[in-house]
Amino acid sequence: MVKTTQQWHLASKPTDLPELSGPNQTFKLVTTDLPALEANQVLVKTLYLSNDPAQRGWISPDADPERLYVPPVKVGTLMHARGLAEVVDSKSERFKKGDTVLGSVGWSEYAVLNAKDVQPAPDLPGGLSKTHYLGALGLTGITAYYGIKVVAETQASDTVVVSGAAGATGMMVVQIAKKMLGCKRVIGIAGTDAKCKWVESLGADDDLVKATEGFVNVYFDNVGGEILDLMFTRMARYSRIAACGAISAYNANSDRRAGLKNWFEIISMRIQVRGFIVLDYLSKMSEVLDEFRAALQEGKLKIDEQSEHVVKASFEEIPKTWLMLFDGSNTGKLVTSL
Amino acid sequence: MVKTTQQWHLASKPTDLPELSGPNQTFKLVTTDLPALEANQVLVKTLYLSNDPAQRGWISPDADPERLYVPPVKVGTLMHARGLAEVVDSKSERFKKGDTVLGSVGWSEYAVLNAKDVQPAPDLPGGLSKTHYLGALGLTGITAYYGIKVVAETQASDTVVVSGAAGATGMMVVQIAKKMLGCKRVIGIAGTDAKCKWVESLGADDDLVKATEGFVNVYFDNVGGEILDLMFTRMARYSRIAACGAISAYNANSDRRAGLKNWFEIISMRIQVRGFIVLDYLSKMSEVLDEFRAALQEGKLKIDEQSEHVVKASFEEIPKTWLMLFDGSNTGKLVTSL
Repeated sequence: MVKTTQQWHLASKPTDLPELSGPNQTFKLVTTDLPALEANQVLVKTLYLSNDPAQRGWISPDADPERLYVPPVKVGTLMHARGLAEVVDSKSERFKKGDTVLGSVGWSEYAVLNAKDVQPAPDLPGGLSKTHYLGALGLTGITAYYGIKVVAETQASDTVVVSGAAGATGMMVVQIAKKMLGCKRVIGIAGTDAKCKWVESLGADDDLVKATEGFVNVYFDNVGGEILDLMFTRMARYSRIAACGAISAYNANSDRRAGLKNWFEIISMRIQVRGFIVLDYLSKMSEVLDEFRAALQEGKLKIDEQSEHVVKASFEEIPKTWLMLFDGSNTGKLVTSL
Repeated sequence: MVKTTQQWHLASKPTDLPELSGPNQTFKLVTTDLPALEANQVLVKTLYLSNDPAQRGWISPDADPERLYVPPVKVGTLMHARGLAEVVDSKSERFKKGDTVLGSVGWSEYAVLNAKDVQPAPDLPGGLSKTHYLGALGLTGITAYYGIKVVAETQASDTVVVSGAAGATGMMVVQIAKKMLGCKRVIGIAGTDAKCKWVESLGADDDLVKATEGFVNVYFDNVGGEILDLMFTRMARYSRIAACGAISAYNANSDRRAGLKNWFEIISMRIQVRGFIVLDYLSKMSEVLDEFRAALQEGKLKIDEQSEHVVKASFEEIPKTWLMLFDGSNTGKLVTSL
């Protein structure tokens, strides 16, 4: 019977890029007792961890709990993370030993979770890895769908630009816009030539300046900062910006942030900006996943091993692997395989 | 018969604050021939000039004609401005000598205008000066109404913040929100204590931090820059920003602009931002003016000599008077009386 577990706890809140060692080390590895399993709970072993830019926000020193969409991580407690896990013991009728499940396991080898907070992860068709439940067929895929279809109200006639287009959300936005919504022009912005090539293979057109000559109707923003500021000047009259993320700013305290200077374009071009968080759209999740499944069968959505970037890591390497999100080295959904 | 007129022409496009003299003088005074009056035209003498922050945008060097909502002013041509004028000669059936009219007279003593581009300016009830047609009962009043009611969809239950609250647009936003829409909390931001006192007399509550303790549902932004950046952090979940102006940035080229750093609040609080220009709403102008007249009678709107700041100026002093817009010295609509 498992009684203890290794965990990564938050050691100190980083103002800039999280540090893996030294006096300001962001996380620390601890071994801690597991609580006793109670009725309607399951004990799970973490198999895969989802790596998400949003996690950076949960450990910021200036995070005001009143203004966060999930509670921040407290110093000295377990780092939050979503993961795919195997049930090793169960006091719930819904799950049995050996089941694969999805839940907020945190950076923990083992976790005791309430069964009501855990979702089943049944086999996927076509031999797809269940890790896609952490990405394309999970919250990131839903984020892409919600942002491009509902928030930006994208129509087939719209010219669409997506930043972070080779990332977990961006790659889905490109495909949903191009193949599911039928947009004629979908332009992806990505950090390297190799990424751009891949994004093009998903359906995006190349060359930002040329492609935006007639200006842009919808911009799906994953990055914020300088690219967003540039995009303000490329938006068409009455265009829409779906503000999804600002990864360029997550590791810079406000003194070091670039700052947006082209705000006036919002006024003169009558641009509409809408910030959104997928948590507001979870009630539609199963509906959207049905739509994704149909699109997969019709060839309007491609999800394969290239849609995720699975990094085999030891438990000690969890923070280091997560930091790959911020150095541009991952393509598709970054997943840690333990 | 008037054959020539004095005019202020654009001499060079300013990158920063327009200059009244020196090698980079922004405007120059010229005497020029008037065109002969043709059928369906009127010759008018300018009585009052409207001073508008938007005029600054029309003379910026980086103004891309494709992205401006009115054509930019070309170097060596008449500075654009709206004004109240007297018809001195007419070849139009619609206007006769002695009529007071509204039109795009520019910074010109006399102007020949097409009658179709000129609006009549009949007497106002209650002995109100016709100069209010340039402000509260003109485009600035309509701007306020369009932004707070239509763009921001303000409801009585909303807490509203207005920046530039002692300015031509802001003073109307405060009154429309508080008295016409019945908002319980309307907070005005203005540049001096005296202005704040006056804004309070229009119905706004005081003390920004205390008043925004429960956060803000609607922010009507006239100023941009640092105040906008601060307001991002004071917005409630699912709140709206009506982006009307950015006077703090108009005289700073992009290198010197402060830059917005709190963009992420738009995402985490799901804020909606909508830029708008009153020109999109002109079809509703007479309807809104009817509503204003009714509100005046019911005491839900106060328009008096304090609603405008009329500066008696010689023709030579037109640019200097206009520049008062940018040093914070005017309260209410800034009007130049020639």
